[in-house]
Amino acid sequence: MRNLKIVVAYVGTRYAGWQIQPKSPTVQGVLEAALSRTLGEAVRIAGAGRTDAGVHAHGQVANFATATRMPAAGLLRAINTRLPEDVRVLRVEEAKESFHARADALSKEYRYRIVRAEVVSPFIAPFVLTVRTPLDLEAMRRAARRLIGRLDFTSFCPTQCRVNDKVRDLVASEILEAGDEIEYRVRADGFLHHMVRTIVGTLLLVGRGRLAADGIAAILEARDRRAAGPVAPARGLVLERVFYEEGT
Amino acid sequence: MRNLKIVVAYVGTRYAGWQIQPKSPTVQGVLEAALSRTLGEAVRIAGAGRTDAGVHAHGQVANFATATRMPAAGLLRAINTRLPEDVRVLRVEEAKESFHARADALSKEYRYRIVRAEVVSPFIAPFVLTVRTPLDLEAMRRAARRLIGRLDFTSFCPTQCRVNDKVRDLVASEILEAGDEIEYRVRADGFLHHMVRTIVGTLLLVGRGRLAADGIAAILEARDRRAAGPVAPARGLVLERVFYEEGT
Repeated sequence: MRNLKIVVAYVGTRYAGWQIQPKSPTVQGVLEAALSRTLGEAVRIAGAGRTDAGVHAHGQVANFATATRMPAAGLLRAINTRLPEDVRVLRVEEAKESFHARADALSKEYRYRIVRAEVVSPFIAPFVLTVRTPLDLEAMRRAARRLIGRLDFTSFCPTQCRVNDKVRDLVASEILEAGDEIEYRVRADGFLHHMVRTIVGTLLLVGRGRLAADGIAAILEARDRRAAGPVAPARGLVLERVFYEEGT
Repeated sequence: MRNLKIVVAYVGTRYAGWQIQPKSPTVQGVLEAALSRTLGEAVRIAGAGRTDAGVHAHGQVANFATATRMPAAGLLRAINTRLPEDVRVLRVEEAKESFHARADALSKEYRYRIVRAEVVSPFIAPFVLTVRTPLDLEAMRRAARRLIGRLDFTSFCPTQCRVNDKVRDLVASEILEAGDEIEYRVRADGFLHHMVRTIVGTLLLVGRGRLAADGIAAILEARDRRAAGPVAPARGLVLERVFYEEGT
């Protein structure tokens, strides 16, 4: 069997998230259907991360085993003709037999877009959170930096979150600015459920002056979901890239 | 009565064009419905140009008469809360009583986006034509320049087009390039039905080497729709801007 790695971009608006579900359209679902039809065999794919309903991806990664001999370039074209336009396979590559998109991911980068405007262009509206109140960007930048390092993110995921180890290592956590637009960029070895969106919701409290930038330390220490801010809407979030060791 | 000018952006994908129709969703239709509900009076709007089904707009202009005393800023917010997300009123301005969005338009600018790529990002796919064959951009540039001036565009509109005067004055007609992307930008005092898309379809014939750049002169002279190329798909086209005399 060959093990193929695919890089996938999708507009998440129409989907109930990445992970396959029996009754709702999911990205994994449409990919597996397109792959199975293209290859004439039942294909199961493993994704690097399970994005939530409405979350987008520029560079999701997945892998699957297949008996096909079709060259990667032909496969790329054939899959895309069977996919809906809001999901595209950007690359198909041969991977080592042991490669696993989730287990081998060294880190992932997410971005969250916020636009400060009275009216947002309909061309970008599905991909941004619109904020009409002034935001203190300097305070948000300071707060974002406090999240860098190996920290316990219990306060930034739902109480019912079943993961035991809630320590994650953030190597980047920054606020970028370009005109009307603000972007929160975060890169870590892994993310808990709702973690990026809860960070963004908390940074927005800081931006609005309802929480001091220094308050982040106390929220982390509390290890209590109630200490952090609300979950920001899915539409602003995009899985930007998944990082692997070179050569995988 | 006040005469209000509005600037409107829309993603045309879902709409049967600008002009109101009894059974299909149209941009004029959703705007008139939102305005009528907001103002509590039956509102009719006049648009600067009738974009076709699937064509987008960054800066369509329209005007309407109203008895309301609501300030323009409040109106802007109120209308947008009643519009679908793919249609946005960007500005509301007081206009002279005599102002008419179509009759007073000095010129309009359209842009047509083409992407040369094996796979197109799902984030831009609804707004571009994808081309997988090589294109001779220099030949396309030369052909585009041949369309500048006061010329008879009979060959570039449907045979059944009812307009008598098919002479239009193109002040800009150029091919722009940025990475994978090509853009055709055209500005004129007016456009015939399907004119921009027929120009693009013809320029693509030139780009593919199936028509010489110099062939444009013969096509114009023929005054025969069959002489020009096919109508390019609607999705790549956007009404960029409508120009008026300063102060209107």
